Amino acid sequence: MKIAVDAMGGDFAPDEIVLGAIEAAREYQCNIILVGDQVRIQQLLDLHNANDLRLSIHHASEVIGMTENPTSAFRKKKDASVVVATRLVKEGKADVAISAGSTGAAVAAALLGLGRISGVERPTIATPMPNLTGITVLLDSGANVDSKPKNLLQNAIMGTVYAEKILGITNPRVGLLNIGEEANKGNELVLETYPLLASAPVNFIGNVEGRDIPKGTVDVVVCDGFVGNVVLKFGEGLASAIMTLIKQEIEAQGWLTKLAAALVLPALRSLKRKLDYAEYGGAPLLGVDGGFIISHGSSKAKAIKNSIRVARDMVDKSVVENIKQSLLKDGEITNGEVR
Amino acid sequence: MKIAVDAMGGDFAPDEIVLGAIEAAREYQCNIILVGDQVRIQQLLDLHNANDLRLSIHHASEVIGMTENPTSAFRKKKDASVVVATRLVKEGKADVAISAGSTGAAVAAALLGLGRISGVERPTIATPMPNLTGITVLLDSGANVDSKPKNLLQNAIMGTVYAEKILGITNPRVGLLNIGEEANKGNELVLETYPLLASAPVNFIGNVEGRDIPKGTVDVVVCDGFVGNVVLKFGEGLASAIMTLIKQEIEAQGWLTKLAAALVLPALRSLKRKLDYAEYGGAPLLGVDGGFIISHGSSKAKAIKNSIRVARDMVDKSVVENIKQSLLKDGEITNGEVR
Repeated sequence: MKIAVDAMGGDFAPDEIVLGAIEAAREYQCNIILVGDQVRIQQLLDLHNANDLRLSIHHASEVIGMTENPTSAFRKKKDASVVVATRLVKEGKADVAISAGSTGAAVAAALLGLGRISGVERPTIATPMPNLTGITVLLDSGANVDSKPKNLLQNAIMGTVYAEKILGITNPRVGLLNIGEEANKGNELVLETYPLLASAPVNFIGNVEGRDIPKGTVDVVVCDGFVGNVVLKFGEGLASAIMTLIKQEIEAQGWLTKLAAALVLPALRSLKRKLDYAEYGGAPLLGVDGGFIISHGSSKAKAIKNSIRVARDMVDKSVVENIKQSLLKDGEITNGEVR
Repeated sequence: MKIAVDAMGGDFAPDEIVLGAIEAAREYQCNIILVGDQVRIQQLLDLHNANDLRLSIHHASEVIGMTENPTSAFRKKKDASVVVATRLVKEGKADVAISAGSTGAAVAAALLGLGRISGVERPTIATPMPNLTGITVLLDSGANVDSKPKNLLQNAIMGTVYAEKILGITNPRVGLLNIGEEANKGNELVLETYPLLASAPVNFIGNVEGRDIPKGTVDVVVCDGFVGNVVLKFGEGLASAIMTLIKQEIEAQGWLTKLAAALVLPALRSLKRKLDYAEYGGAPLLGVDGGFIISHGSSKAKAIKNSIRVARDMVDKSVVENIKQSLLKDGEITNGEVR
């Protein structure tokens, strides 16, 4: 298996990206192609004594910045690292690509470079979120704002494949993110989506509310990309704020509590790990015709290593092929139209 | 000052509602009118030896349930407690009303019973959310799904009045909830709203992301009611899940940590208080022509007491009058049209 990693994308690129790839190459059975500035990547491989691992470099001379317009950057910068990594997948020289760079640029590179799976109108980002008992997959978490009902239907089908194949959940429970549980609640989008999900070949459990995500009462949560992205970033911020507040509160309580806090530290560290996005690896971009993983912009080595693990699983479990079959099953969806 | 409290609305009505009113009557300088079943309320006042306080009962024979259609219930049940409490405000017999019953029924009762402030197209629920340094007001948090740009503009203006008058924030920072900071990010709604906010008489700081709410880098966050409601409930669920996880982690660590945890308990309790919606009182429904506070459905006595405090502040600081003036200021908004 060959995994192409955009070594130049992300807040800590290329140093942390290359380091994460080195750790993955040591731990997992896969070949990793680092795409980007040959000289800088080679320096990092030398620094970490990583020249004997199954890592290779594919030079790319350009980088797409975080503030560039994704589509026009894709068209102009033919030799950008994310564009080249995607091209390796398209040409069969890699099985899956990973990027921690601009999400917009990654979506554009994947969509324009790999094309959509036949019948898929819009690709979707499937983000795993920790809950009290395991993982809930939220999709779409930002690829497609102003979603239409059939986009949400396809999210439900693709999310079901992801939950089954990657998370190992049998018959995953699919919920429609809404402001109340009753079928007559919600905005225009969810009111029109509800009947589509009710008759779709997924285990639809009805409307769910925001609180159901951390509770873990649902495995696949379907929503518009605007809503999903806001929820995701709010959750990251809230979890981080709560950890800060715990520290502040303990410090305000004096030395005896500080001593006690030192003893409680293992529990807090374990909690932090549970809430840490880096543990769960990247979010696959589903609906494009090839493997593509979007890693968090602030990914450090651990997050990249875990993204590589998810990328490997995606290929191992033939997620893209399974999505193609699920979308065609029962003739439910053909040529992007819902019958 | 007279505050009408819907004694029959909420998961723990009437017991906890009446108890909260009793506590408020003991602590604050205001007259409280308990609206609902005279016999049951009187029994509770007797039980708590509360007959010497500034509490009175206004009988209402009906109750609107959580699953009833709000508008038709409003029209059919003329003597429902929430309808009667609202009528007392309309007739000048109370200055403000509070309900912890069905949010839909409360919004319908307030909207149809009090009418809208001239120029306001849709009322909005302004929910105070705790952050690292204080409070952020989120609006709309559920009154108005499928909002239009001018609804969001009015939310910004009304939220500014609320933050200034009730939270005591000078020149509150107003942010538009979005999926990125750049002005060209977002869905159709926020793209059209951005220029309206940029030229509005508020301290608009631009787009903010979900993570900015817990960080406390913004005082007033403007969004569609669907998005706001999902965020609010997700936040409640996540905070509660994190507290559960902390307990689980500590229990998994053995007796020494349990001992230590006992010492850390004051810190955790203090944290829980900071995250507890009940501490912040209810969420005012802004844009209706009269004072109206929506309390959380699972309100217990403490939440009701704090809602009564917020209701008192709303009247003391003439929030409704101030909103009327702000909406007319500079002829910015007239007859519901944005010029």
